[in-house]
Amino acid sequence: MESSYDLTLVNARLVSMTPNDQGYQVSSPKTLQIKSGKIVAISNSEAVSASPLKPEEQSKVVYNCKGKLVTPGLIDCHTHLIFAGNRSNEFEMRLKGVPYTEIAKQGGGILSTVHATRNATVDQLTELAVPRLTGLMQTGVTSVEVKSGYGLTLKDEIKMLRSAKALEHHAHIKVETTLLAAHAVPPEFKDNADRYIDLVCQEIIPLVAEENLASSVDVFCESIGFNLEQTEKVFQAAKQNGLHVKGHTEQLSNLGGSALTAHYSGLSVDHIEFLDSSGVEALASSNTVATLLPGAFYFLRETQLPPIELLRKHNVPMAIATDFNPGTSPFADLTMMMNMGCTLFGLTPEEALRGVTCHAAQALGHSTTRGQIKTGFDADLAIWDIPHPADLSYQVGVPRLATRIVDGVLCLGGEQS
Amino acid sequence: MESSYDLTLVNARLVSMTPNDQGYQVSSPKTLQIKSGKIVAISNSEAVSASPLKPEEQSKVVYNCKGKLVTPGLIDCHTHLIFAGNRSNEFEMRLKGVPYTEIAKQGGGILSTVHATRNATVDQLTELAVPRLTGLMQTGVTSVEVKSGYGLTLKDEIKMLRSAKALEHHAHIKVETTLLAAHAVPPEFKDNADRYIDLVCQEIIPLVAEENLASSVDVFCESIGFNLEQTEKVFQAAKQNGLHVKGHTEQLSNLGGSALTAHYSGLSVDHIEFLDSSGVEALASSNTVATLLPGAFYFLRETQLPPIELLRKHNVPMAIATDFNPGTSPFADLTMMMNMGCTLFGLTPEEALRGVTCHAAQALGHSTTRGQIKTGFDADLAIWDIPHPADLSYQVGVPRLATRIVDGVLCLGGEQS
Ligand SMILES: [Zn+2]
Ligand SMILES: [Zn+2]
Repeated sequence: MESSYDLTLVNARLVSMTPNDQGYQVSSPKTLQIKSGKIVAISNSEAVSASPLKPEEQSKVVYNCKGKLVTPGLIDCHTHLIFAGNRSNEFEMRLKGVPYTEIAKQGGGILSTVHATRNATVDQLTELAVPRLTGLMQTGVTSVEVKSGYGLTLKDEIKMLRSAKALEHHAHIKVETTLLAAHAVPPEFKDNADRYIDLVCQEIIPLVAEENLASSVDVFCESIGFNLEQTEKVFQAAKQNGLHVKGHTEQLSNLGGSALTAHYSGLSVDHIEFLDSSGVEALASSNTVATLLPGAFYFLRETQLPPIELLRKHNVPMAIATDFNPGTSPFADLTMMMNMGCTLFGLTPEEALRGVTCHAAQALGHSTTRGQIKTGFDADLAIWDIPHPADLSYQVGVPRLATRIVDGVLCLGGEQS
Repeated sequence: MESSYDLTLVNARLVSMTPNDQGYQVSSPKTLQIKSGKIVAISNSEAVSASPLKPEEQSKVVYNCKGKLVTPGLIDCHTHLIFAGNRSNEFEMRLKGVPYTEIAKQGGGILSTVHATRNATVDQLTELAVPRLTGLMQTGVTSVEVKSGYGLTLKDEIKMLRSAKALEHHAHIKVETTLLAAHAVPPEFKDNADRYIDLVCQEIIPLVAEENLASSVDVFCESIGFNLEQTEKVFQAAKQNGLHVKGHTEQLSNLGGSALTAHYSGLSVDHIEFLDSSGVEALASSNTVATLLPGAFYFLRETQLPPIELLRKHNVPMAIATDFNPGTSPFADLTMMMNMGCTLFGLTPEEALRGVTCHAAQALGHSTTRGQIKTGFDADLAIWDIPHPADLSYQVGVPRLATRIVDGVLCLGGEQS
């Protein structure tokens, strides 16, 4: 007899993260049926044990959760996981009091990462990213967004995106790629950012779209990045080429990039410490997610807090991500970011968990297939040895992940801690 | 032929943490010979390969570090790892805006941990602590201090200390126990802290000393803990019973507990955000270590910074520890504390690494046997896949530990991530 299901979880206490009050409640023990990577049925475990067929007769694999908590697999919706070089030396110089101008003169800052990344091969870049990804997976991540942005040439941006996509062959993970060619003005265009933006719009975006290397285009819209006009040009090119848009906006000043992103139906605006009430209202009248990046806030010792209370008031969905990158957030632990979201930004543990499940899924354009435990959704799950979902935001460093499931496949390999 | 050594490390690039400028430099490839748990010889790997006997002829086990960095095993010199109960619910209530008085009324706060700990057995307490300890070991910890302080009766304090000592049978780790009966006034002595202090001095300390259950005695010297006079009584009793002393001092106010601890030749004063210059001078004229606990500072959103510049000026050794505890620092990652020491307190990565090696060893009274890579010292080591020691303070969550060595025994088991 052929099995009806590929995987059955029994005695799973679900934290489904559906967008209602029940979503954060711990359910009674449930049985989850999975087929072809999707959740196809959820029922009470008692009902199943009373049925004439035992789980092991219906399913290829049966996993007994023994009452452990099951959440949607966590989603890290903003990372810069692909890069070469190491900037611990720069971190050390800064703490020894070396001024930033001197660090830059010695080749530090983002351009040191650009230089090292340009000199690396696709395979080297992938290999360097695997331990970072392992860190994330050990904290329950099943989907990760990865941006380009340290290549800043057609060839090197494409190399970064290919390298990010290759991560799926090295680990049980789903990778979503974003083109961030407009991350910084490359040295070759030092005094002519507009000409670089032309290159991004006329060559890089069309080729990336054609070769299906990214689903979104991102811009660092900031006084030290690109201005509103340049950002809009990039968004227009992205839309013309059928790609989603999103923005690094309002991190260090209030330029209006978030409202612009919302106007272009962006998936998310990220950082947003300096977002004002008109920006929040622009988000509220769109489907754009507000992505909080407390790791960078902490690492840069920022003091301007994102407008959490306003975002709440206007029901803007908030996501949380690691922003893993070598310059401002070298932290490969998504639960540490949940803790920082609570401790530094005052989020509740429920908001923090929504920020790495249903809202992070929305920030990737996957709100109807990921980030919730629901029939029809992808079978991406994390199984935890914890008494209550708040524990995920509360503790850091204590191993609690029993296992992950990605597209219905149990990950019992070495990447669990 | 009998082997001359139990373990030989070859191609080890050492970061010895000896108290000189060389201590933080990365050495050329060295060969380390280990026998009976001690480092017995350190030589250049080239010299060894030129000798007539190959390493594998001289040693039972040869481990090729392949140029990886080797530091002293990290030492977490301040934890409250043993307790029952879970306070994620309290964390959640606080973030939902429930006032502290209401949380206390619902049985929250330290007394909820005391209640749960009193109701647990020695074995249960040990079992609950193992995952926390695993988190620490995954970040390279080979020695950990564990305090009592959630029992607050003769029987329950002793139970906690036995449970802490039993951790050594569950993991490759060295445990140092500290009696912290003077952690809080137990409910039974609610309006009579002095009578409780009498019990601590006359019954608990003598029995703990007699049964060799702790090497030090600690006091929470604070407006919401015990006053200076009570602290001094405890120190006197400790000294009379041949135990070291140390203090939780100057965390929330400047009571003078640090100077008192220094006066009693204390091993360390811990927290010390409110330490003033006369307190720093008292430390400078003693061997007392200043232990920084940035996790609690962060979790409590404190703003008063410890007097780092003054401590530097007076050459007071600074240690860093997790302070792992359920109320104010639920963080089982010592490298995350190193990052917080740098990011929040402005330590250099060298100071942070000294803070978890040589200075942490001094805070445990083991400065002549642990915390440095030196002939005659304990063979407690951590082997890292990193380019520079600053990386340990810089990144969090990226797995980088190749293996640990405790008392000359390679730990190749499952606790590595
Ligand atoms: Zn970013
Ligand atoms: Zn403490």
